[in-house]
Amino acid sequence: MTETPIFDDDFRCQLNELLTWRRDVREFSVEPLPGEIAEKLISAACLAPSVGLSEPWRFVIVEDPARRSALRCNFEEANKDALSDYTGDRAQLYANLKLSGMNTAPLQIAVFADQHTIQGHGLGRQTMPETAAYSVVTAIHTIWITARSEGLGLGWVSILDKTRVNEDLEVSQDWQFIAYLCIGLPITSSSTPALEKSKWEQRGKVPNFIFRR
Amino acid sequence: MTETPIFDDDFRCQLNELLTWRRDVREFSVEPLPGEIAEKLISAACLAPSVGLSEPWRFVIVEDPARRSALRCNFEEANKDALSDYTGDRAQLYANLKLSGMNTAPLQIAVFADQHTIQGHGLGRQTMPETAAYSVVTAIHTIWITARSEGLGLGWVSILDKTRVNEDLEVSQDWQFIAYLCIGLPITSSSTPALEKSKWEQRGKVPNFIFRR
Repeated sequence: MTETPIFDDDFRCQLNELLTWRRDVREFSVEPLPGEIAEKLISAACLAPSVGLSEPWRFVIVEDPARRSALRCNFEEANKDALSDYTGDRAQLYANLKLSGMNTAPLQIAVFADQHTIQGHGLGRQTMPETAAYSVVTAIHTIWITARSEGLGLGWVSILDKTRVNEDLEVSQDWQFIAYLCIGLPITSSSTPALEKSKWEQRGKVPNFIFRR
Repeated sequence: MTETPIFDDDFRCQLNELLTWRRDVREFSVEPLPGEIAEKLISAACLAPSVGLSEPWRFVIVEDPARRSALRCNFEEANKDALSDYTGDRAQLYANLKLSGMNTAPLQIAVFADQHTIQGHGLGRQTMPETAAYSVVTAIHTIWITARSEGLGLGWVSILDKTRVNEDLEVSQDWQFIAYLCIGLPITSSSTPALEKSKWEQRGKVPNFIFRR
């Protein structure tokens, strides 16, 4: 592509709809996805920004049933621990939440940041080494919105013991675990977050997040 | 909106163009931006995912010339320190890079993660407290692509002393500094990253980032 694209109101309106209807999906159809979808999503992810052009993202597509099972155990134990931090009604509410689609999502990707990559020659990382992880997060968000544009849902699972994820997948401990992604056709769709529907939390008003100096 | 939007090939193609032409912009026109653009971008950012619906993002629009000047000094000192880590040709290459548009960008936003927000009731943060920062990064990426859809460029500055940023802006040290964003009309546009053009680094091939287990 050699000519700068211009985006119009119609595109911006659709982009806003995409952002509005992007959800953290936990209920997936078991229907298999079109071949090459993982590669398509990861190709889009590689268009994300990265500190010093370091591209520290490492995408591990998890297919082996034994590994998927180990990761589910990892989640279940971490989730049990998390539940024990709540009491009373809040504990009851927590226990009723569905926090992972690991049982059914046809496509599952563990995403890591390679903290020791020499790519990028360390640019931008001296003062803020955490920008390597942040770069990977922008790649994940890119997968998320690209998946949504394809009619697919994504759920980000963070209730996992990180060290154990690297062990479960036999990847170097130098790779910092960032997220476990469940991707598939969503059972339902909504412009309201699942945690709002289940009365866990409500979104704040935009002006409350804006400050001026 | 009550009906699930369906996205077509034309939208997906434009979304891919947007991702392809999104750049980390460091050269801005001084031309002022339309009023309310900051609020528009931040409203889109608030559609981003957040762990446990905690919405830990805090956007500080920096307008005061004295504060902008203090932040520029912060950047210049951190950048001088960063340069001292390189030697020979690499140091020369580094010295010639333009790594911030803080001198000219009409809109500048410092973005923080409130580590102590009670919103979200801690959900998803016991095993991975860093997901609060990650949520803020998805909000920043949302600003980035929304800005690009409006014909605006964004540059993420990370070469800053974090503690000092909070001091420069008189915000609580409980707010974790995530990024300083420079936003404005870009002087040039390209589908090739600036760091690739300046021979600092090249992007890798997508298959090199994909692993299977």
